[in-house]
Amino acid sequence: MKNYNIAILGATGAVGQTMLRVLEERNFPVDEIRLLASERSAGKELEFMGIKYKVQPVSPEAFEGIDIALFSAGGSRSKEWAPVAVEKGAIVIDNSSAFRMDDDVPLVVPEVNPEDVKWHKGIIANPNCSTIQMVVALNPIHKSKKIKRVIVSTYQAVSGAGATAIKDLEEETKAFFEGKYYYPEALPNHIAFNVIPHIDVFLDNDYTKEEMKMFNETRKIMHAPEIKVSATCARVPVFYGHSEAVTIETEEPISPEEAREILKNAPGVILEDDPQNNVYPMPIEVAGKDEVFVGRIRKDLAFDNGLSMWVVADNLRKGAATNAVQIAELLVEYGLV
Amino acid sequence: MKNYNIAILGATGAVGQTMLRVLEERNFPVDEIRLLASERSAGKELEFMGIKYKVQPVSPEAFEGIDIALFSAGGSRSKEWAPVAVEKGAIVIDNSSAFRMDDDVPLVVPEVNPEDVKWHKGIIANPNCSTIQMVVALNPIHKSKKIKRVIVSTYQAVSGAGATAIKDLEEETKAFFEGKYYYPEALPNHIAFNVIPHIDVFLDNDYTKEEMKMFNETRKIMHAPEIKVSATCARVPVFYGHSEAVTIETEEPISPEEAREILKNAPGVILEDDPQNNVYPMPIEVAGKDEVFVGRIRKDLAFDNGLSMWVVADNLRKGAATNAVQIAELLVEYGLV
Repeated sequence: MKNYNIAILGATGAVGQTMLRVLEERNFPVDEIRLLASERSAGKELEFMGIKYKVQPVSPEAFEGIDIALFSAGGSRSKEWAPVAVEKGAIVIDNSSAFRMDDDVPLVVPEVNPEDVKWHKGIIANPNCSTIQMVVALNPIHKSKKIKRVIVSTYQAVSGAGATAIKDLEEETKAFFEGKYYYPEALPNHIAFNVIPHIDVFLDNDYTKEEMKMFNETRKIMHAPEIKVSATCARVPVFYGHSEAVTIETEEPISPEEAREILKNAPGVILEDDPQNNVYPMPIEVAGKDEVFVGRIRKDLAFDNGLSMWVVADNLRKGAATNAVQIAELLVEYGLV
Repeated sequence: MKNYNIAILGATGAVGQTMLRVLEERNFPVDEIRLLASERSAGKELEFMGIKYKVQPVSPEAFEGIDIALFSAGGSRSKEWAPVAVEKGAIVIDNSSAFRMDDDVPLVVPEVNPEDVKWHKGIIANPNCSTIQMVVALNPIHKSKKIKRVIVSTYQAVSGAGATAIKDLEEETKAFFEGKYYYPEALPNHIAFNVIPHIDVFLDNDYTKEEMKMFNETRKIMHAPEIKVSATCARVPVFYGHSEAVTIETEEPISPEEAREILKNAPGVILEDDPQNNVYPMPIEVAGKDEVFVGRIRKDLAFDNGLSMWVVADNLRKGAATNAVQIAELLVEYGLV
């Protein structure tokens, strides 16, 4: 079996470090691992398979001989370095939003549209965290009864905004108990014991970019340009794990029992739906896990043909690192690398 | 001007104590104040207008001579004591869910259906906290363009579950930083850095009672039995202030500009809607305030005639104590007491 040379750009970040853990856990066939970051983070040491590696500053030469480059260093670095890495012969799996909506870049969730990796031209985009977990839950239902519209409200963890945002929640909460003032560095507002209805920047239609990602990326991943998605994305004082209240209207009726049966057998989904025994997914329980957890499935009361459900996943894993490594696995499986 | 004898049953609770503060702040014409609670809480002292009062155990005699009794001691105590208080000549304003859906009990939000107090038969019900803030925001829109359906997701503060739940969040968060284990006493699950999609008990249709309150009470308060309300109610690690992501479909089109104009002039509403300058309502900023704060108004992308918005209010104030005292003020204004 062939082993591959893997580079991680943004290795010191919250997602980058999780990528290392996921590559280890899933026994990805790694020959050489190369950890890359900006000048600021270069020199730090990170462990992979029990060996310490020094993080190198990103450069064109750093991609020499690399088979797969996992990028998670923000959109502007992706735009700068992805063409360079591709030029050097690597396939880039990019976690930023830089290329997601490009017509010649596949946007892939392996449980939903694995075949799309086959038409890549060097870059494959990893979708937005909130979108990934939602489409893993919705696609199996859509294949059975067409979904017309989706109304989703998110309860997103601070780790989605990176390592500094994790520190923000921790430090601001401690400061609260000490009667001190702390202003978050990474988040747009106070997060301790608060809810911030603002993730990523506001656009001209008064939706945030995060909310529009859920609209646009869902359609592209599910190959369903007719589905209407209305999202409200809010940050809550949670470290790991995004929760989503998802309401759908389908073209034909679907009962909660049918939906449970579909999701019980759906790839990457774990059904946790026994409300009478207080069984439903919650972020503190999904943290560290790779699947998408679905519960609270019930007939929606606003639509004749509607369902409501509660979808939770670890945003750093299935929402980012795990999905990216799964895409790399697809490249191996399809003999594309 | 006449002054009134007021009793508060459940005076030592989170809502009961807020009722005392709101009566003071709004200069309600109080002659005598009588603080009542269960045997367990009797004997405690609470201040009103600078004077300390001892909490008395509730008894039939305790309602002798009372004009208005504010109840916030849970449904079973309301069922036991409301008929007694009415028998003694008091008008009961009940914050529990015990009588809300009774056909001969008005369910009143003064900004929405003030006239309903006029047909009371001794008991007037104060609605569910999440419902109150939602109908204050939706009713002015409904009067302009009929609302067909509402999809709402809540982000509810622990104070909605009472004083012990406030302690739960505080103690569990502290324990987290000390590496200790703490299990909440009042909440059905861990709340520190978590989200719990479970408020009140689960019913046969797999909705919670809290979610069905939003369905049923909205229709009764707004006199709109045709509106369909689908709710997902979740508890978040916030002390004070419920947030709601509200999506509506209207019969005719309504633009965000029209909705802003309507809400700017709506009773009890404060519009905080300037996303480009990071202005939107958040729970830590509405805590201690009596109004309903609305922001993030935008054309909903899932419906042709739809709007989305973000609605936040202090659940102990407008969601409970303030609304109850406003009902008492209506009784005075209409000469019903």
